[in-house]
Amino acid sequence: MNPIDTLHPILVDGRWIRADAPIGRFRAVDPSTKRELGGRGYPVSGWPDLEAMLAAGRRAAAEMARLPAGRIADFLDAYAGAIEARAAELVETAHRETSLPVEPRLRNVELPRTSGQLRQAAQAARDGGWSRPTIDTAAGIRSVYGPLGGPVLVFGPSNFPFAFNGIAGGDFAAAIAAGNPVIAKAHPAHPGTSALLAEAALASAKATGLPAGAVQMFFHADAGLGLRLAADPAVAAIAFTGSRAAGMALKAAADKTGKPVYVEMSSVNPVFVLAGALRERGTAIADELHASCAMGAGQFCTKPGLAVLAPDEHAETFVEALRRLTAAAAPGVLLTPRSPQAVADAVAGLRSAGADLLAGGGIADAEGHAFRPTLLRVSGTRFLEDPAALQSEAFGPVCLLVVAESTEQLPRIAEAMEGNLTAAVYSDSGGADDDTYDALERILRPRVGRLLNDRMPIGVAVSAAMNHGGPFPATGHPGFTAVGFPAAAIRFSALHCYDNVRHHRLPPSLRDRNPTGALLRWIDGEWTTRDV
Amino acid sequence: MNPIDTLHPILVDGRWIRADAPIGRFRAVDPSTKRELGGRGYPVSGWPDLEAMLAAGRRAAAEMARLPAGRIADFLDAYAGAIEARAAELVETAHRETSLPVEPRLRNVELPRTSGQLRQAAQAARDGGWSRPTIDTAAGIRSVYGPLGGPVLVFGPSNFPFAFNGIAGGDFAAAIAAGNPVIAKAHPAHPGTSALLAEAALASAKATGLPAGAVQMFFHADAGLGLRLAADPAVAAIAFTGSRAAGMALKAAADKTGKPVYVEMSSVNPVFVLAGALRERGTAIADELHASCAMGAGQFCTKPGLAVLAPDEHAETFVEALRRLTAAAAPGVLLTPRSPQAVADAVAGLRSAGADLLAGGGIADAEGHAFRPTLLRVSGTRFLEDPAALQSEAFGPVCLLVVAESTEQLPRIAEAMEGNLTAAVYSDSGGADDDTYDALERILRPRVGRLLNDRMPIGVAVSAAMNHGGPFPATGHPGFTAVGFPAAAIRFSALHCYDNVRHHRLPPSLRDRNPTGALLRWIDGEWTTRDV
Repeated sequence: MNPIDTLHPILVDGRWIRADAPIGRFRAVDPSTKRELGGRGYPVSGWPDLEAMLAAGRRAAAEMARLPAGRIADFLDAYAGAIEARAAELVETAHRETSLPVEPRLRNVELPRTSGQLRQAAQAARDGGWSRPTIDTAAGIRSVYGPLGGPVLVFGPSNFPFAFNGIAGGDFAAAIAAGNPVIAKAHPAHPGTSALLAEAALASAKATGLPAGAVQMFFHADAGLGLRLAADPAVAAIAFTGSRAAGMALKAAADKTGKPVYVEMSSVNPVFVLAGALRERGTAIADELHASCAMGAGQFCTKPGLAVLAPDEHAETFVEALRRLTAAAAPGVLLTPRSPQAVADAVAGLRSAGADLLAGGGIADAEGHAFRPTLLRVSGTRFLEDPAALQSEAFGPVCLLVVAESTEQLPRIAEAMEGNLTAAVYSDSGGADDDTYDALERILRPRVGRLLNDRMPIGVAVSAAMNHGGPFPATGHPGFTAVGFPAAAIRFSALHCYDNVRHHRLPPSLRDRNPTGALLRWIDGEWTTRDV
Repeated sequence: MNPIDTLHPILVDGRWIRADAPIGRFRAVDPSTKRELGGRGYPVSGWPDLEAMLAAGRRAAAEMARLPAGRIADFLDAYAGAIEARAAELVETAHRETSLPVEPRLRNVELPRTSGQLRQAAQAARDGGWSRPTIDTAAGIRSVYGPLGGPVLVFGPSNFPFAFNGIAGGDFAAAIAAGNPVIAKAHPAHPGTSALLAEAALASAKATGLPAGAVQMFFHADAGLGLRLAADPAVAAIAFTGSRAAGMALKAAADKTGKPVYVEMSSVNPVFVLAGALRERGTAIADELHASCAMGAGQFCTKPGLAVLAPDEHAETFVEALRRLTAAAAPGVLLTPRSPQAVADAVAGLRSAGADLLAGGGIADAEGHAFRPTLLRVSGTRFLEDPAALQSEAFGPVCLLVVAESTEQLPRIAEAMEGNLTAAVYSDSGGADDDTYDALERILRPRVGRLLNDRMPIGVAVSAAMNHGGPFPATGHPGFTAVGFPAAAIRFSALHCYDNVRHHRLPPSLRDRNPTGALLRWIDGEWTTRDV
């Protein structure tokens, strides 16, 4: 028997079961060798699998809505511990499937971030403050954010096998913390990692008494079935991180059926380097920009893919420094077999829109899937002639420099920017760029989720103050973030209002007595931990 | 010259101007006589009008983003005062255009509610707490909810000439409080009222120094142009209250362009009367239900249009009491010339789906636009055979009784309910219905925004604890309310994150020093008014 005939089971309703009439199968691939990895293959699920998960997810949603918040917190904590207990195996598997560096990336950064996120979610669930219990004693009305009443469908991306995994990452943690079951779609770039995570999730769910369908996972489905799943009324909400094409299709399917959908799609994360900063520390900024573009072979949502240089004689020094760094850099491994061609297509698109190639530009002649670190350049004038084409994301080690030809081009370039996750501005430390900054800030502020000064956007701190989100088309809603509580959890919740409801029928968070003595509630216009 | 040739001007960029090449014209109608009202006609705007408003709205958005919050609060307060100063004229005009009773409805309830809402919005804007300033000192990240960067398009409904008017109501107040300009579409059922409100808004905006395009209004456009406007990238968000057909079309147009859209559409607001309540106080509940269905001739978003009676011998007494009340009631005046036929069509739909007519059922033989108070009845068994058709909203004095034939039908009927703004449950005061209540509550909770006990849903208190919203298709997002701060304002805002941004460049609410000394901020995990 060919080992691919023995497919890995999928996680449905609390059990690992054989996929029911899968419509296809695939293997994990080591992107550093392009070779298929051994072990079992993975099923491409057909509708019967997805239907079974929906039914179990609905049952689980009804049960989870009645669990004490502490139980959900216990699960999230237990899961964080289980991930850490299996860290060695997880890191090894993720490294094999993604070629991301073991150290520091997977072992020291991404895995601790993932367990840390789960623990922050646990704390939010236990504390309950994210749900904003609000009591108006005069009107007899009380309200609190609560679960949606159905499973949340989470599509994980290729680029973070732990921290954004559909079965373990930020969206998963937020959806569970808000009291919803999750149906996760693993990314085919790291199915073995996802399976290990799902095992840990299942064991933790069982140990802490979550309902059977609270955490479910399938490995793959075709696009049509994915859209059918997204549109099914049993799915309460959707979270997606990935390409714009896939995100837009999912969003359209979900929008038609009126459910909340959070898609984190492409972003070029423009970096503006103003004249004073170029003069003062251009080379240092070029170093920073290069490191940020190269990190993870350029496969970060927050990679600065576009830098706008102010018109200044030092701009050419900056360009040349970056060109040398880029030309000298070794190609990093890309995540999927389709990645090199996708990056090549994006670079071709930039070039045909008028960008000149300064370094790299082609698929690397390497053992693995790789693209040569690439730098392109275009004038501000040309950029303004076709800003849509010239701000297409290349998901790889590619950066486009836009060299403004006059000071008045800077605000016009900023105005031509689509919605982005981030924008960064580097300016003179002594204040020489302050007027230009002010003009740019007014334009950029409504166009991005996170605005940075003198810092590259690549790091995404897990903080209540973080916004890992932004206006369309970076995401589908400018009011939410995928990282950081409470906004990440509120996405997956409904506002539950109780009007004249008898006291013993209220959820604990809305009864007169503060359920923990420490829950912050908004009572008659005041944040307080007191009883009513 | 025919007076209709002298069309009322529209409010664009701070001035009342003649509509540019209007594509049509209309007159206000007195629905109690079906006669056109005198005075000027109103233009149906073509694209040039809308385009001019978009351009002005964009400019105003950029200016408003830099105004101190106190200025916006001053405007909202001034506008509330201006409405009260012109109360007599407003009430008279609204009465003439809508036939809604002068007292208590227009003068004593709706107008004070409207100015009160504006003052609550002013307080929220001045206080700033709704914007949740969040500071993480360790990470160097700060965030706050801020304006969207473009005008919000507000479509007001027919049924509240003041409180939900596009130029004065809850959506208007929330959008402005969050710092956005508004482009309002008046409802053609009360153009003169809307014009008076817009005059008051404009005077208040000028007096308090709001930018010229902060408040703009047109009277009407055709559906195609409305959708084109909704889809225009210059529109930052949309609020709509009205029919499901119009709301769904707007939502689709907005969704495609990735902007936040809040549509409050149809809702039948089911009322469940359990066996103990029927026995204990069935007649009193029938009185309440009748009064709620009759109020405003049944033209409330929260009208209880469907009541489910538990299987009990007292159900027939309830039905008969309601039948007598309904048959004896005088028809109220409906708001628009199309209303009587629309209600007739809805009643015909219910009948063809199997409902029996107990009282009323036809367009009233009256001087004005009116429909006879109508009661229908269907068995639980029949309801469960075609729940979609039998929960269509009839926007008028119509109520459908669903008489369950077995106790187990109650939860099945609840499960068949679409998303609604509200559901109410009447149960035995001594606890005899508690088990049934528990089972129903689990089903209803995720299906409605506001759950009531022993109270009809028709009143919508303006409270921080209110949810005037609910799951699709009642609205487009279950996490927001159209009434009550902070959730109403958050709808029209973006999360603005500042990462490593130099201190003097931060907005005042995020600087180390608390700008008012009283602004509640979430600093390093604690709500506080202290400085950093």
